[in-house]
Amino acid sequence: MSIVLASASPRRRELMQMLGVRDLVILPAVGEEKAGRALPPDELVKALAAHKAREVAEKCEKDDIIVAADTIVWHDGQVYGKPHTEADARRMLRGLSGDTHAVYTGVCVLRGGQELLAAERSAVRFRTLTDAEIAAYIATGEPMDKAGAYGIQGRGSLFVEGIEGDFFNVVGLPLCRLGLMLKELGVTLL
Amino acid sequence: MSIVLASASPRRRELMQMLGVRDLVILPAVGEEKAGRALPPDELVKALAAHKAREVAEKCEKDDIIVAADTIVWHDGQVYGKPHTEADARRMLRGLSGDTHAVYTGVCVLRGGQELLAAERSAVRFRTLTDAEIAAYIATGEPMDKAGAYGIQGRGSLFVEGIEGDFFNVVGLPLCRLGLMLKELGVTLL
Repeated sequence: MSIVLASASPRRRELMQMLGVRDLVILPAVGEEKAGRALPPDELVKALAAHKAREVAEKCEKDDIIVAADTIVWHDGQVYGKPHTEADARRMLRGLSGDTHAVYTGVCVLRGGQELLAAERSAVRFRTLTDAEIAAYIATGEPMDKAGAYGIQGRGSLFVEGIEGDFFNVVGLPLCRLGLMLKELGVTLL
Repeated sequence: MSIVLASASPRRRELMQMLGVRDLVILPAVGEEKAGRALPPDELVKALAAHKAREVAEKCEKDDIIVAADTIVWHDGQVYGKPHTEADARRMLRGLSGDTHAVYTGVCVLRGGQELLAAERSAVRFRTLTDAEIAAYIATGEPMDKAGAYGIQGRGSLFVEGIEGDFFNVVGLPLCRLGLMLKELGVTLL
């Protein structure tokens, strides 16, 4: 039996290792994300996570446990994905400045015929940023591969006054929830 | 000019490095912690942080910037420090189980004649733990060098349903606040 992480995210891999998971197999889903963008955010991330988990499950052994997740930043009724350009990142960071947004992560855990699916929400409060701070942050390169154009576990921490909810959900994997889901499928991390 | 971290905590050192601080000097305070335990928690951590910063400042250059911090876990009107024994850790974790506690970090930043002092509070909500989970967690060794007998940035994350406030304040250094204090003394991290 292996735990298979259906994600290419180095941050999710590090979180699984932080939990002491041994024999972790990394097998990212490659299919297009097909969930309808019209769904509410919690339904959207659940649909995307389930899609990834089911795709990867087809390449795995029957007893393997597949973990998939999808994270979005949600602000003013819009999904903030990964920025395509620096101008994109600047626009997102200006939008988040001085305001509270939500981060949703959907998690799907599959084993044999069993499928568990959940979504977790965290609120993140940004302090007011100056254009100079936004420019300096973009120059570090940190925003470019991250939903919402910031990393809370990096220099983006300097912008975050506080959160409400699971911190690791903002990083990309709600660990407390994931631990309970794995337990339900017979895997004890503690 | 150097930034001098007046702390032996490997977690605080990692956080400063995460912020991209170069030329970080580690010079832990060695004096006894003398603040009165009868103080309210925010005053207590400020007094302890100021005490450390002033002690270390005496060994530094006039232009150096000294950063000191002190973190306590506060539950039911009591300070939870680092556990002395495994029985101690078990008692603390049973106390935190299924309840919300507060974590206070005091920060003192000194440069020349200027001294900035602040305390930050975060609330941490634990899910209900079984004795078997507590025993398994203690067996990992993680609780023994940490206030309140858990590490939120380790396997202790499996116990934390959510927080309210700055996550890094719970780890030991409120980064958003610290960034603003450093800026006030002329050091720009972003």
